[in-house]
Amino acid sequence: MKVAVVMGSKSDYPKVEEGISLLKKYEIEVITRVLSAHRTPKQLTQFLEEIENDTDVIIAAAGKAAHLPGVIASQTLIPVIGLPIKSSTMDGLDSLLSIVQMPKGIPVATVTIDSGLNAALLALQIMSLKYPKLKEGLKLYREEMAQKVLEDDKNLRG
Amino acid sequence: MKVAVVMGSKSDYPKVEEGISLLKKYEIEVITRVLSAHRTPKQLTQFLEEIENDTDVIIAAAGKAAHLPGVIASQTLIPVIGLPIKSSTMDGLDSLLSIVQMPKGIPVATVTIDSGLNAALLALQIMSLKYPKLKEGLKLYREEMAQKVLEDDKNLRG
Amino acid sequence: MKVAVVMGSKSDYPKVEEGISLLKKYEIEVITRVLSAHRTPKQLTQFLEEIENDTDVIIAAAGKAAHLPGVIASQTLIPVIGLPIKSSTMDGLDSLLSIVQMPKGIPVATVTIDSGLNAALLALQIMSLKYPKLKEGLKLYREEMAQKVLEDDKNLRG
Amino acid sequence: MKVAVVMGSKSDYPKVEEGISLLKKYEIEVITRVLSAHRTPKQLTQFLEEIENDTDVIIAAAGKAAHLPGVIASQTLIPVIGLPIKSSTMDGLDSLLSIVQMPKGIPVATVTIDSGLNAALLALQIMSLKYPKLKEGLKLYREEMAQKVLEDDKNLRG
Amino acid sequence: MKVAVVMGSKSDYPKVEEGISLLKKYEIEVITRVLSAHRTPKQLTQFLEEIENDTDVIIAAAGKAAHLPGVIASQTLIPVIGLPIKSSTMDGLDSLLSIVQMPKGIPVATVTIDSGLNAALLALQIMSLKYPKLKEGLKLYREEMAQKVLEDDKNLRG
Amino acid sequence: MKVAVVMGSKSDYPKVEEGISLLKKYEIEVITRVLSAHRTPKQLTQFLEEIENDTDVIIAAAGKAAHLPGVIASQTLIPVIGLPIKSSTMDGLDSLLSIVQMPKGIPVATVTIDSGLNAALLALQIMSLKYPKLKEGLKLYREEMAQKVLEDDKNLRG
Amino acid sequence: MKVAVVMGSKSDYPKVEEGISLLKKYEIEVITRVLSAHRTPKQLTQFLEEIENDTDVIIAAAGKAAHLPGVIASQTLIPVIGLPIKSSTMDGLDSLLSIVQMPKGIPVATVTIDSGLNAALLALQIMSLKYPKLKEGLKLYREEMAQKVLEDDKNLRG
Amino acid sequence: MKVAVVMGSKSDYPKVEEGISLLKKYEIEVITRVLSAHRTPKQLTQFLEEIENDTDVIIAAAGKAAHLPGVIASQTLIPVIGLPIKSSTMDGLDSLLSIVQMPKGIPVATVTIDSGLNAALLALQIMSLKYPKLKEGLKLYREEMAQKVLEDDKNLRG
Repeated sequence: MKVAVVMGSKSDYPKVEEGISLLKKYEIEVITRVLSAHRTPKQLTQFLEEIENDTDVIIAAAGKAAHLPGVIASQTLIPVIGLPIKSSTMDGLDSLLSIVQMPKGIPVATVTIDSGLNAALLALQIMSLKYPKLKEGLKLYREEMAQKVLEDDKNLRG
Repeated sequence: MKVAVVMGSKSDYPKVEEGISLLKKYEIEVITRVLSAHRTPKQLTQFLEEIENDTDVIIAAAGKAAHLPGVIASQTLIPVIGLPIKSSTMDGLDSLLSIVQMPKGIPVATVTIDSGLNAALLALQIMSLKYPKLKEGLKLYREEMAQKVLEDDKNLRG
Repeated sequence: MKVAVVMGSKSDYPKVEEGISLLKKYEIEVITRVLSAHRTPKQLTQFLEEIENDTDVIIAAAGKAAHLPGVIASQTLIPVIGLPIKSSTMDGLDSLLSIVQMPKGIPVATVTIDSGLNAALLALQIMSLKYPKLKEGLKLYREEMAQKVLEDDKNLRG
Repeated sequence: MKVAVVMGSKSDYPKVEEGISLLKKYEIEVITRVLSAHRTPKQLTQFLEEIENDTDVIIAAAGKAAHLPGVIASQTLIPVIGLPIKSSTMDGLDSLLSIVQMPKGIPVATVTIDSGLNAALLALQIMSLKYPKLKEGLKLYREEMAQKVLEDDKNLRG
Repeated sequence: MKVAVVMGSKSDYPKVEEGISLLKKYEIEVITRVLSAHRTPKQLTQFLEEIENDTDVIIAAAGKAAHLPGVIASQTLIPVIGLPIKSSTMDGLDSLLSIVQMPKGIPVATVTIDSGLNAALLALQIMSLKYPKLKEGLKLYREEMAQKVLEDDKNLRG
Repeated sequence: MKVAVVMGSKSDYPKVEEGISLLKKYEIEVITRVLSAHRTPKQLTQFLEEIENDTDVIIAAAGKAAHLPGVIASQTLIPVIGLPIKSSTMDGLDSLLSIVQMPKGIPVATVTIDSGLNAALLALQIMSLKYPKLKEGLKLYREEMAQKVLEDDKNLRG
Repeated sequence: MKVAVVMGSKSDYPKVEEGISLLKKYEIEVITRVLSAHRTPKQLTQFLEEIENDTDVIIAAAGKAAHLPGVIASQTLIPVIGLPIKSSTMDGLDSLLSIVQMPKGIPVATVTIDSGLNAALLALQIMSLKYPKLKEGLKLYREEMAQKVLEDDKNLRG
Repeated sequence: MKVAVVMGSKSDYPKVEEGISLLKKYEIEVITRVLSAHRTPKQLTQFLEEIENDTDVIIAAAGKAAHLPGVIASQTLIPVIGLPIKSSTMDGLDSLLSIVQMPKGIPVATVTIDSGLNAALLALQIMSLKYPKLKEGLKLYREEMAQKVLEDDKNLRG
């Protein structure tokens, strides 16, 4: 079970960190890389060739004109999850549209702006097709999540 | 190999049709349903319970305050692909944001507005984790797609 | 006279607090709950069944792809007031569109982004149909509000 | 049981028509008026004074800088439902924001852009607080609506 | 020479202050008022009646669903300058659209979001039709403004 | 009484036509010109110099990155009314922002997108400072406008 | 003097056609290609290698998540002009942001949505650094353009 | 080798500083000026006349209704790079649209909001047509940039 997490800049790391922790808790092997579609296109291509046969899902995080997820998706058949990162202008709309509005033929599975956690959970759900045992963990996760809501609910009601 | 395609209204059908045809060409069993998160919530829940154990991916198409993909995602661990449909106002932005901006814990894999084809291709890529033979078909699809671009290129160059 | 205030996350509480205080001042019984359309859908449904017969209005606050108000509205005939909460991206536009753009058949009464106060006042106006005595209080509230503006006016004019 | 439907311009009529028909089916007395917050402010005020004591809900439809619902709301304690109308520019966003973003103290219950039907249904739900028999009709309406979805579902499944 | 500056809330004062100072420097009599289109509609109408015959221009500042300038414009023939104020959500877009997108027949002269200074300068330009001596002051102002740019230019060039 | 109507392209003419007719009805001399801030900057400057002393108001209509109103405003002290024209993309938002968001010091009186009529009415209101007799005409216009609404109202009520 | 015009899909051709004609009138050799950043990445790279040494400017047109200009820019030092194409949703905003918001280090010279003409003119201006004789042609073009405005002006003035 | 960097206000300087440093490192002569399209139009025109014959590229930075780049572009045949500056409202969208959406005939080469660096790099790429030795420096820059990404990548991988 292996997930590659690629980000366009190391400054995106805080946004993916929570997701990486989650994946590791599920005993997923996580390869975390800083690789840019524009600044290191060759290294990116080489990396994608290396992982093509043993990686289940790729998470790609990028901001602004966020081409990274789409460029990766065009070079692999591994499902690519696009994580739009909000930068200092345009409130995340630029990266969202640059990731989700992919042309016919090369989809990117786009998730909530800045939510590395949702990217990781989607990766787990996708991997559970092949590794059904993950379903147990995900069920548990949802139960804990529900539990947390119910505790907050209890506290608020006092 | 089984995909459920759920839409909130039968008027969304033209937007998912191309994707359904593609899935069938890959010999995927496709269950196509009109079920509304708001108008038929119980039937939706019942349907999701029925398909929980033998369906690989769910594609959910919806317009406006497009809750359908998120509501489905909250009731299943099957990966849910959200397809935002442009309605008569707001140029697709409302459905895009309503689908992609899911809260922490329940991701929806959002694709290009109105592109049933991209939803289907993402479904196939996800399913290829479990059914590796799909990869051959997807490779072929990409080659044909590239071929089509190259033909257009040739024609344009004259 | 009973209002249920439901929020998708306890972090929304500061945005509804002012409205809850106001309702209590009008001797409305307020049930405050943290319940998520996505993380605790069953508890939400159960709660809605419990309150169906003795609650006058439901206020539902949520951010991002704010499905909570719409999901509640689809399961009850009690009027639902939707309160869009601004989150860290998209400046409140995502929650506004996710709440207000409901499909045909299931309306949500949407109010100003982040204004728990307006949600509460709308609840009071709606309830005044059944409890006419509330009108007196509302009239007074408007007079006090006008008074406050006039005082500010007086101070500014010096 | 009485609802006032006010629109800023007679060109808005096609957008409220479906809602008016629905209200009449429920034996609601409907007063339909063309009155402008800007062009006939005095007649508007006079009309509001006339209906203050015997009207349950006001539906106000307007486009562009849609002040009508808010101006009405400031002059009455009757609950005001705001219906944003899409005009030839800005895709409905201008009227939506002009209606929903009311300042503290004067809420407008805003519904889906261009959906007179949702405005009418919300009016009925609000009125059902005072006229509980409306609940039966609304339940039936939801059942019929669900039935229609299920029929579409059946036809599509073929 | 008389300008009325009306704001919907005293919190808008810091945004109009610079403009008021400028007007006073030009020996314009400035009446500054806090009056709300929604919370004190009658006092607003009364104020407008009082000033109708001796006021040259009205500046109206408001945020969110900023109805104040339009409501004033509908009750007077005095030119109304609308000053959109940015509030805590929607980055000023809501107040801009609510002010500028006035329906046919009742224009509001809208200026830069949050720029009380531009509102005041526009007032002066409008008044200069009637009081040509203002032109001299405005010319001087532009010269000083140009001078300031040229000094900044000189300093930057070092 | 003289108004200059300048547009950036003759294709903007249909949007200003209604306003020009109105101005002529009020016996205003109207100079209509096609002059571009970018394509004929010198002719524009020359024209502005010619009219500086005998023109009361300038109406400037432009689409896309609509610089015309701002460029005119920077070269004259005559009040400039900016009329944003919707072009084939961006639904009028580009021209609105390019006109209204003028920097400190050079205001443009911006009106409703595509509403030449509102531009003309604002011009008349501004000119009425100098030519009080215009007020009578404007009063009449408002009365007729109100009358038209009341007729529509009467017809709709049937 | 050589310009490469690359588009992501042959459907973009009508938007670049006017620009290509203009370039040819200036005796620029124009290579027109349909090549997709996502569907034919290798052919794109190969093409860029071929033209690296004898091409002056590249014009890249693309719609939706328009990665083509940015992907090209990352693989060449030739100046890349990005032409955003409006597609069926989002009114051109998606392609504009996907092209212009490039990350630090890899700029794309973005021009008006759908304006192949502006792309071509910018190409000519850039090339005029190396081929000064182009300046004469560009001056002439501007004069003709001004002439056309002046003729429109004359006709309108009648 | 000469680049003019013009900004509308000295407050834009921090956004262009990084670009100016880069240009100087490449031994480009940089003329930095504060000149406003609206406040100092004549000085701007005079400056443009002075530099017309010995300047290779102009970088123009401006915020809000950012007319500066377009106004410059209309007065010169030197390629103009437009740098949109984010101001206190509208998140940079106003300046982006005001710069990029230029009408037919006068293009502005628009780059990433607030990225003086990208403006400078584009200037260097454009100048490299005439001064091919710049290509070496740019190649080196890209290599260093790639190197930095690879170092970040190495550090992150630990």
